[in-house]
Amino acid sequence: MNQALDALCINTIRMLSVDAVQKANSGHPGAPMGLAPAAYTLWTRFLKHNPRNPEWWDRDRFVLSAGHGSMLLYSMLFLTGYDLPLEQIKQFRQWGSRTPGHPERELTPGVETTTGPLGQGFGNGVGMAMAEAHLAARYNRPGFEIVNHFTYAIVSDGDLMEGVAAEAASLAGHLKLGKLIYLYDNNRISLAGATDLSFTEDCAKRFEAYGWHTLSVENGNDLEAIHGAIRAAREEQSRPSLILLRTHIGFGSPGKQDTFEAHGSPLGEAEVKRTKENLGWPLEPAFYIPKEAQTHFHAAISTGQKAEANWQEHFNAYREKFSDLAREFQQIMSGALPANWQASIPSFPADPKGLATRAASGKIIAALGTALPTLIGGSADLNPSTFTVLPKLGDFESPQRKFIDNQGSAGGDWNYAGRNIHFGVREHAMGATINGMAAHGGLIPFGSTFLIFSDYMRPSMRLAALMELGVIYVFTHDSIGPGGRADPPTGGAIGGASRHPASDRHSTRRRQRDFSRLADRDRKSLMSSGIGLEPPERTDSGA
Amino acid sequence: MNQALDALCINTIRMLSVDAVQKANSGHPGAPMGLAPAAYTLWTRFLKHNPRNPEWWDRDRFVLSAGHGSMLLYSMLFLTGYDLPLEQIKQFRQWGSRTPGHPERELTPGVETTTGPLGQGFGNGVGMAMAEAHLAARYNRPGFEIVNHFTYAIVSDGDLMEGVAAEAASLAGHLKLGKLIYLYDNNRISLAGATDLSFTEDCAKRFEAYGWHTLSVENGNDLEAIHGAIRAAREEQSRPSLILLRTHIGFGSPGKQDTFEAHGSPLGEAEVKRTKENLGWPLEPAFYIPKEAQTHFHAAISTGQKAEANWQEHFNAYREKFSDLAREFQQIMSGALPANWQASIPSFPADPKGLATRAASGKIIAALGTALPTLIGGSADLNPSTFTVLPKLGDFESPQRKFIDNQGSAGGDWNYAGRNIHFGVREHAMGATINGMAAHGGLIPFGSTFLIFSDYMRPSMRLAALMELGVIYVFTHDSIGPGGRADPPTGGAIGGASRHPASDRHSTRRRQRDFSRLADRDRKSLMSSGIGLEPPERTDSGA
Repeated sequence: MNQALDALCINTIRMLSVDAVQKANSGHPGAPMGLAPAAYTLWTRFLKHNPRNPEWWDRDRFVLSAGHGSMLLYSMLFLTGYDLPLEQIKQFRQWGSRTPGHPERELTPGVETTTGPLGQGFGNGVGMAMAEAHLAARYNRPGFEIVNHFTYAIVSDGDLMEGVAAEAASLAGHLKLGKLIYLYDNNRISLAGATDLSFTEDCAKRFEAYGWHTLSVENGNDLEAIHGAIRAAREEQSRPSLILLRTHIGFGSPGKQDTFEAHGSPLGEAEVKRTKENLGWPLEPAFYIPKEAQTHFHAAISTGQKAEANWQEHFNAYREKFSDLAREFQQIMSGALPANWQASIPSFPADPKGLATRAASGKIIAALGTALPTLIGGSADLNPSTFTVLPKLGDFESPQRKFIDNQGSAGGDWNYAGRNIHFGVREHAMGATINGMAAHGGLIPFGSTFLIFSDYMRPSMRLAALMELGVIYVFTHDSIGPGGRADPPTGGAIGGASRHPASDRHSTRRRQRDFSRLADRDRKSLMSSGIGLEPPERTDSGA
Repeated sequence: MNQALDALCINTIRMLSVDAVQKANSGHPGAPMGLAPAAYTLWTRFLKHNPRNPEWWDRDRFVLSAGHGSMLLYSMLFLTGYDLPLEQIKQFRQWGSRTPGHPERELTPGVETTTGPLGQGFGNGVGMAMAEAHLAARYNRPGFEIVNHFTYAIVSDGDLMEGVAAEAASLAGHLKLGKLIYLYDNNRISLAGATDLSFTEDCAKRFEAYGWHTLSVENGNDLEAIHGAIRAAREEQSRPSLILLRTHIGFGSPGKQDTFEAHGSPLGEAEVKRTKENLGWPLEPAFYIPKEAQTHFHAAISTGQKAEANWQEHFNAYREKFSDLAREFQQIMSGALPANWQASIPSFPADPKGLATRAASGKIIAALGTALPTLIGGSADLNPSTFTVLPKLGDFESPQRKFIDNQGSAGGDWNYAGRNIHFGVREHAMGATINGMAAHGGLIPFGSTFLIFSDYMRPSMRLAALMELGVIYVFTHDSIGPGGRADPPTGGAIGGASRHPASDRHSTRRRQRDFSRLADRDRKSLMSSGIGLEPPERTDSGA
């Protein structure tokens, strides 16, 4: 009986997605068809959420990184009772609807982050788990786990191929984010054909190398295997988990299952009919929702309301006992800034000697770190150059980590409460994870690198802009010509490049060519200004 | 005796680098000091090159991906007799010199590619090895291996952290590029501190997961271990090789070895002195080159001339036997285009129905594929959408690969002679590898994706521009507003987005907002033009 109900619910997801894509005459039906059992299992048996309050902030976060499979997410949101009525499903990909081709944060209730450009959702989820770990370390107290949620994502082969996901996975493994659980939709088909045309690596081994816990589900239709894997992933809290799920794109379609034709196009009327026949589904009406299925899915509403009420009760007790902490917690979750935070900002009186902008920036960041409990961030391995340290606020690292410094002695105590993040030489993951932290809520994250390396994280910056996320970028070393240097060196703090800029900005060859075209007079004035073609380099250590 | 000479030569590299950085009062001395033994072993015992003709095209390619360690490369070029006199070493990082802070292709003889932005050189090397594999498959004949060289690179922790390198490594493993050999400078120090602040993955395991052969050298000063590892890497021709080399940044500096202070700053006069004392090096003069060392290094000149002469003789015999092939080979290596290649380009008479630009582009690419033996490329998993296929010219895949299609039967014959490259969903690696192919010579590579995803490969595009490399980009789907769609759908071929653009270009939310601000008249005209805010989506399969 339960098995029959499970099957009915799963086919409801499949057919809703198929019908919506067919009606729109565009979209990606294959992924929702293959993933329906996994999504069903996760959403009905594990996901902590309240469809009636998508903003309840101790909810689990769910990210569909493979955003092109959007109808899967819309099906789950509609079926479990979010404010996304069937009419919106029927308006999939239509002008003015809340169901665009790819999920968009703030347009659709329950969509945590805008996804579509592959790899970004993967990185966002890592950021969400970082935010959860940080806030838990800051605000939880023994017996009071007011911050305690998982971050789940469904990721695709395309996500795993993107460099931004590789960077974020390495960072997540390093940080031992145990409450991060990803399901990899291993359907072996990409837009252009079989994935093994270009992607034959051993994904499980790669993620183990990053420090992840990996699990394998051989049959993506086996609910108990999926259930067992998710449970095991939840129990392993010392590492992030990747569940490799062997699925079949377009599952149930006699003519298109396991082909790239199920990837990015509607099945077509005839194939929709064959698929419904194959799965024992009524041919009419389209968008058919069996009553038993709807009832079963709607259990999420009362379950969610109860979960939030329980949490609220727990939080009330916490507030009784830790009133200052609770006040600060409520304030940061609301996004409000503390009173008088501006008072902390230092002013810089006119000074004939001048102050490098990055030096002034560093002083302001340091002051704001104290004034704003929500400020958190770091650089892509350039702290000594970008001056983006929050003094005395600790490093964001796993408490499990035993840091051994180069002299062989154990370093300081590490934990997730630290507010200086070491992103490593991973600009793109920095961009994607600070997006995830901002989307999670409760934090104002910042990321820093040299201006030119913003190119490495540009796709994430674009999404931050589209989502209007409150992230901050600190880009230094923005003059037009570092690399070579003027002779004699003039020293000083303006500009200055260090890590790899010689080839950056402008090649020496071209700069020399351009420079030789300048009139002598102009050349001299640029050279002496110290801010022209050849700014001096930093000579202090670390740059 | 030989060991003493080896040590003398290695310290020559170290001290030349130290003195040059010190004189410039800027630069990165630590990497050359740690890597000198590996560079010495590679360059004097293995590297096939002719310092007197850096353009000899069957030379091994060498890439210093960690471009900030440029003095290592300049030292090797100067010492082995390239046209880079000592005076240029003394002018390190000075205006007008050929020794800028980071190596630049075409500025300095022997520099194969511009490096500095981390990860790019890693990807370039993969492209060079792809070019070698392809040209070997096309032009070699039994007994005549006129194309037969290795691609070596020195890569750093920063390179391995970058997503572009992860993508390129996965692609190289998939393609089984056996003549690609990378040495990983595992010194455990990055610019901002110890790498284990952010980078604790198991690199060997990760590369094995990609399909690489990995070797470990525990002591980066152990010449015989380095020698053995390189030899084993050369013998393993069915997979790319990564040699993990435990080095010590700033080796020999009593005060700065193994610290980030040796990374990006001169040692300082006092520490230079202590280092020379420590290594038994004369304090004066700076830039001291022992005669025995110079003589030993200069053996590369005669060895190189002999190697090229042998190759030339071999090629002459090949030309006797395969005159047509030899003619074509000489032509493509010269970079000249075949006579009348333009005649193949189809023309498109005025047509009231119109033709999508990507469709016209596809026809031209197909025609040029036949006319130009050098044209090679593909897309980042978007062939069915970007129309960038070279018909009947085969897929660029390893001959070792047995492709099993979805029906379980073995696919076609695969080999490196194919000219359609499946880059996978790896835009950045696509950008970096086509740079490498162009830098290698003999090919005109192209890469394709949707315009907005050019953001993912932007750092590689910038380097292509700085190097003025002959790469071609085909970017389709460039209209301003795909994602949602106009209702009713209008069909047709212009624009149209498929993989993940809903969230792309412009969010639906913002587009709807912007759209609602338009006057009715403008709105109507945009809707009906089919090229305005809401272009129709492709409805054919594969998009």
